[in-house]
Parts: sequence; structure tokens; C-alpha cells
Amino acid sequence: MPATDTRARPRIVIIGCGFGGLEAARALRDAAVDITLVDRTNHHLFQPLLYQVATAGLSAPAIAAPVRHLFRKQANVTTLLGEVTGIDAAARQVTLADGGVLPYDHLVVAAGATHSYFGRDDWAAFAPGLKTLEDAFGIRRRILVAFEAAEKEADAARRDAWLTFVVIGGGPTGVEMAGTLAEIARQTLPGEFRRIDPASARVLLLEGSPRVLQAMPESLSTRACEQLSRLGVEVRTGARVTAIDAAGLQVQPTEGEPYRIDSRCIVWAAGVAASPLGRALAQTTGAALDRAGRVQVQADLSLPGHPEISVIGDLAAAQSHAPGREPAPVPGVSPAAKQMGRTAAGNILRRLAGQPGQAFRYRDYGNLATIGRNAAVVDLTSPLGRLQFSGYPAWLFWLFAHIWFLIGFRNRLVVLIDWAWAYWSYDRHARVVAEVDPLPVPEASSAAVRSP
Amino acid sequence: MPATDTRARPRIVIIGCGFGGLEAARALRDAAVDITLVDRTNHHLFQPLLYQVATAGLSAPAIAAPVRHLFRKQANVTTLLGEVTGIDAAARQVTLADGGVLPYDHLVVAAGATHSYFGRDDWAAFAPGLKTLEDAFGIRRRILVAFEAAEKEADAARRDAWLTFVVIGGGPTGVEMAGTLAEIARQTLPGEFRRIDPASARVLLLEGSPRVLQAMPESLSTRACEQLSRLGVEVRTGARVTAIDAAGLQVQPTEGEPYRIDSRCIVWAAGVAASPLGRALAQTTGAALDRAGRVQVQADLSLPGHPEISVIGDLAAAQSHAPGREPAPVPGVSPAAKQMGRTAAGNILRRLAGQPGQAFRYRDYGNLATIGRNAAVVDLTSPLGRLQFSGYPAWLFWLFAHIWFLIGFRNRLVVLIDWAWAYWSYDRHARVVAEVDPLPVPEASSAAVRSP
Repeated sequence: MPATDTRARPRIVIIGCGFGGLEAARALRDAAVDITLVDRTNHHLFQPLLYQVATAGLSAPAIAAPVRHLFRKQANVTTLLGEVTGIDAAARQVTLADGGVLPYDHLVVAAGATHSYFGRDDWAAFAPGLKTLEDAFGIRRRILVAFEAAEKEADAARRDAWLTFVVIGGGPTGVEMAGTLAEIARQTLPGEFRRIDPASARVLLLEGSPRVLQAMPESLSTRACEQLSRLGVEVRTGARVTAIDAAGLQVQPTEGEPYRIDSRCIVWAAGVAASPLGRALAQTTGAALDRAGRVQVQADLSLPGHPEISVIGDLAAAQSHAPGREPAPVPGVSPAAKQMGRTAAGNILRRLAGQPGQAFRYRDYGNLATIGRNAAVVDLTSPLGRLQFSGYPAWLFWLFAHIWFLIGFRNRLVVLIDWAWAYWSYDRHARVVAEVDPLPVPEASSAAVRSP
Repeated sequence: MPATDTRARPRIVIIGCGFGGLEAARALRDAAVDITLVDRTNHHLFQPLLYQVATAGLSAPAIAAPVRHLFRKQANVTTLLGEVTGIDAAARQVTLADGGVLPYDHLVVAAGATHSYFGRDDWAAFAPGLKTLEDAFGIRRRILVAFEAAEKEADAARRDAWLTFVVIGGGPTGVEMAGTLAEIARQTLPGEFRRIDPASARVLLLEGSPRVLQAMPESLSTRACEQLSRLGVEVRTGARVTAIDAAGLQVQPTEGEPYRIDSRCIVWAAGVAASPLGRALAQTTGAALDRAGRVQVQADLSLPGHPEISVIGDLAAAQSHAPGREPAPVPGVSPAAKQMGRTAAGNILRRLAGQPGQAFRYRDYGNLATIGRNAAVVDLTSPLGRLQFSGYPAWLFWLFAHIWFLIGFRNRLVVLIDWAWAYWSYDRHARVVAEVDPLPVPEASSAAVRSP
């Protein structure tokens, strides 16, 4: 159908339109190549703000931009909606769930990660994780329905279980979720219920290791704990979850007796696993996987024996190669995914020009996590040294950094208005669930041990 | 739990928080009564703009406000999330799906309407209707996925079927849907696809009767048709649908041979039926139902023999009683539902004061329908006579009327910004589907007769 003959142009297939895939496609904008960008969804998701959708602070379109709209002016990109089910490295083609086949000359796999329940996939039904918009809607529904159910519940113990929110995992997502849940209970909902006091809700953050925000320096972990406590979150470190069911969970503390927490709203923020496409890649190329299922890539992000295949983002077990330093593992954060996208795109152009690929070097500009209203921790790395701060200035920094990196001008404006509104009114405007299933009725609780 | 003793206060139960139920609760704001407002969802939906959510112009929270937030300052209202499954007029109580029971002294039933497929409920799977947010998300998904599937489809006939959009029913919703679909195909999407031209999509509006917008004067129906044609919609009146399947539909025109239209995206805007609660009410009170399942109410909106039960809104087959005129049927529009809500509330107060209820009188301020960008028709009734206009001024009138009646200041602002943006950019920002199911693969088409 295209008017010009493009058959001679190298065909690049990019799987996944997260931060890595998007950046790889953009970095090839001036290249004489034909790019096919394929994803299971029709949008690029700004995942750092997904917890805001889950907690009804933002609507989904504020953090999700249609991929084909983003690339409407980049003529060398064809966007396809489809689920990749197989990769054939020998035939150099990708197969889709609908039977479609995409041949490639160069392949960039940026399929990302999903939740990991460490072998306990049965927990997923009781403690959903937060990776997609669908996940966010499910968690939003659980949170809002829990308060609704509490308002209707006559039995005090059951009511308390509806009003007990547990977040498992003290990484950035867990800290954000717990802080925001406390804010909803203490600031947004009071005054709207007649039979319960939403401010009496308990929000617990459970972390198996000795401290939250492990990627941060210890002093900032301590600050984060203090700020969470001030918001009304009970932080329990060294608290390992050993069982989850529909009515609560079982905790094994590092010291002391195991105990049970009755809770009807549990959020899983504890672990990620690489996309199953990692396994498909390993089979077809012989590449090795690490324990989390990530594909071990070479210095230039390509696979051994397959310079035409690059793996980037959360799916890649990559190393940073800075001159004069030992190779260091690259963290699973969005700036790293973007940088890998640019490196992979650059290496494709180099190979097309007959040159070898360059090693990936991760530039770490720092780390930041928000906790709630006016509360965040920031750890910046600059040529002048490290800069650490917390509290209100850190929150402002976090706010503008996130709005700045949001895709598309309009979204930034909408998010800023939404937040300005939420800030002044304590309102959360997206407190809407499309349709509410009949509330699940808890079985007679088999809890032998109650949490204190 | 309440500090004050409220047991002596009359208990009012209102079922449904659409326009009627909401208005009834508001009209009782100063009354010494205890109101329980129960709904299946947690939000009041501004249904006149639901088609904008279905066509990705607005996000759900822009037209849906949490009910308990709306009533946070009205202390005599308790909001409950629950599905009413039964009404016992003798025991004066309402039962909920979760087993809960709500005793009442006065009951207002405002449960609204749902789609009617005129006995062909099997059509619902192929031609979804538009009543709830869930419906809107489903239709949004179908529309967006149809263009995505067309971009991937190699077979020309199948591609055409994906690019053929059919709206069944030429009432206000059908006209809005068809006009907006044409706008998306002609204005929003072009430039974003590489293999198809979205502007080549066909949008058909089928109406069984001789004209669209039957509630309007004939001259405005003609204007609407002209404006639809200008937007690129093929309007077919006198076109009765006789069969719908996954790959298209069968049409019997008033004159001529039956024909088939191959289409993968069909929207049903042809009929409504009263909520099933009408039947429950008929059983427990002996009230009569009309053909659409609506409950025939007395002049004061109560049921025969049950002055303590009022039925309002789309569930009521009500008459307007204007002095010196014959009783006239009340149309199923939101201003009528609101007015019935006020009358029902006033009659409850009258009965509590030992007075008889007053007859309902519908004040008709006119009728308006939008068609698309800059296109609408308006038919106003004023003391000075009727005022009819169409085109750009009608569209502006429609726009500000709808924004004005949106619940809550913030929503108005957000909707205005969204629309201003959409107007200048032709963009539709909510083009997001949470997760896309594998695209349905059409069976080998059994179409014997093709549409011309």
C-alpha cells in the first residue's frame, strides 16, 4: 500500500512500548529504517504515577498516551496492537497471538516485567500487584469497596478487617501506596460516612528486610519511616509474609511469634519477575536467564551470537560499563530503561554502518520516592557529589520531576490541575469504579492468632 | 453509633442515584428524616455525556461523581453501595443482594432503565448499548480496537468490515454516537496509521422509523440529517434491523430488498426497558406495568393503595397534570426525572404533615441534541413561544447547557478544559483501553447479501 518502495530499508521490530521501547523508537526517528512497534496495549503508561490511578487521584488517560498518537509524525514507525507469543531467532521473525508474523532485521525486546509472588501465584487473587491500568482499576475498586463494605457491616471484627489495609513490600511503590492510603483514610473520606470513621482505618506497610526503600541511603530510609508514621502508617520491617487468604495474612517477624492480620484489602508491591518473553528468547537464542528470569545481555545489550537482537529495560540483566570502573548491575528504573533504549538504537545504526556496537553505560542521576502529601525523599547524584533531602522540598522536587517527564504537554497540564485541586481540597476526583461487583462475603474467619 | 437519638425520625429509602433519586434526596435536605440512598454503583453518572466517554473524549471521572461525596454535608443522608433484589411492600422493607434489609416509612424507587433488544437479548453480545460506565468502556474498546485490527488486516473485505461502524437507533444517543464516530475517523485519527486511511471508514446510522430525533419537530430532524451527512455519516431511515451477528447485521428497508452490512463494530441505541425492579414492585403492590415494563403511577407519583411508595424517572409511566389540560405522558428525559424527584420529595413531606400529595406537572423547557463538532439542534419551549435553531449556535448552547448541569464545580472545569483542548487539537485524550483482549477473529463470513 505505501506509495514509495521501502523494501530495501532495514526492518526493526520493537516489542513493548514502555520507557525503553519508546525511547529506542524515538532515537531512530531520522534513520532510513522501517520500525514496527508492537505492544499488548494501545498506550504508553507512565508507570511512576500508576499508584495515583490506583488510589483515585488521577484518571487513567492522565498517565496513558496512545502510542500511535505519540508517533503520528514519525513516519518510519508503524504501531501495531498485538501480543507477541513467540520469537524465532533463526528465521528472524516474531509471531503474534492472532497468527500474524513480523519479520525483522533487527529486534529490540523491551517487554518489561510483571509481578512475582515468589512461587505463590495463588496469592495474586488476594493481594493484587500494580503494573497495568487494569491492575490499578482493580486496586482502586478494592480500596473504595472496602470502605463501602465497612459502612454496611454490623459486626465489629468484620468491620475492622474491611478497615485494615496492608501493603506488602517497602519499595517505592509500597511506600507510595501506603502513604496515599493513609491520606485517603485521614483526609479525603472523613465526613462522608455515617456509621464508620474512615480515619480509624489502619494502614500497614510490611517489609521483609530490615528497612524500607533499600535502594536509598539508610538515613533516607529512616526519614521515610518517620514521614510514613506521621501520615498514620504502621511500618513493620523484618516482617515476612508466610500466607495470604481472602480474609487476611500471616506474618513471621524476624523476632517473635508469627501472627495474623485480618484485612480485606491487601496490595502486593513486593516483587517483580521478567516477562515470559525472556524464556522464549532463551530458548531460541540460548541466552542465559538470571534468577528473576531476566535475560543476560552482553556489554552492548545484544545477545551472544545474535548481534541483531537487543534486550533492554526490566527484561534485561545488564551491566553498566563506565570507563575505569568495574561493571556494575543496572537497576530496574525508568531512566535506565530509557538510556538502554538509546544505546540499543545507536548500536543498530552502528551495525547498519558496519561498525561494532558500543557498551552500555548507565548514568545514575539519583533516586527519589514520594510518600504522601508534602513528604518525599530525594537522593541526587551530580558531578559535585551527592545531594540528599526529604520532606516538603523533596516532595516539590518529586512533583515537578514527574510532571516534567510525563509524555505529552496536555497530560502535564491535566495532571498539574488535578494535583493542584487535590492539594487544596484534599479531594480525589477519580473515586469512581465502573461497576461494583456484589461485595465478597468473607468466610467465617479461621484466624487463630489475631494481630495486636 | 449516632450520638443523637434518631429512631423517631421517619425513614426514607431512595433506590437509585440517577437524576431522579439524587434530586429527591436533595429536596429533603432540611427535613427531619433519615434518608438512605442505595445504588449499585458508587457514583452519580451524568448520562447525557456518557457517549463522550464511549468515544474517548472524556475520562470517566469527568462525568461521574461519588454519591457520598455529593452528600457529605447533608447529614440526614446515609449512602449505601448495594444492589436491591426485592421490595416487600407489606413489611415495608427493601432487601439487598448481600442479605441486608432496609426498613422504610417512605420509599422512592428511581431505578431507571436498561437496554431493550425487543426480545432479542442475544444481540447484546454483538451490539452493546450505552447506559453505564462499564458499557462506555466496552464501546470505547470496540471502536479503538476496530481501527487497530484494520491496520493489521491484510484481507480487503475483512478490513472494510473493521472500518464499518453501525449505530442502530436514531434517537439523541444514536445521533451523538454516529456524529462523533465520523469525527474520530475523519479528524482525530488520520495521520496515525500507516496501512489504512481512517477517513475511509464508513459510519452508518440506522433508524427503523421514517426520521431521526423523533421527539423533535420534523424540520429539526431534517437539519440533523443534513449535519450528519456533512460529517460523513450515512443516515438510513426506514431501515429495520432483522438480525445481528459477530460479523455484521441484516437490514430490512421499508421499500426494497433486505441487505447485509458487514461490520465489526455495532452500537445499540435503539431501545430502553424499565429496570427489573418494576416487576418486583408490581408483584408486591399489584401496580400495573406498561409495555416497556414501566410502573404506572398515580397523579402524585405514588402507587395505588401505597401512598408511601413513589416511583420516579425512567421507571415510572407517569402523566403530567397541568391545570386546564389533558394529562399527557412524561418523556424519559433527565429534566423530567429531576422534577419527579422534587415532587416525590414534596409529597413525602406533605404526607408527614397529614396533607394529601400533589399531582405531578412536567414543565417542558425544550429539547436539544448534539451531532458533532459545531453541529446540534435545539427546540426550546418558553412562555414566549417556541424557539428552534441548529448548527453552530445550537452547538454552543448545547455545550454550555451540559457543562452547566454537570454535577460539581470541578467536573465542569475539567470538562471545559478537555473540550477546549479537543476542539482546538481535534485530539481525544481518553483513547485508552485498560487492557486489550486478543482481537476476535471473525469466522468465515456467511454473508450472502452484501451491502452496496
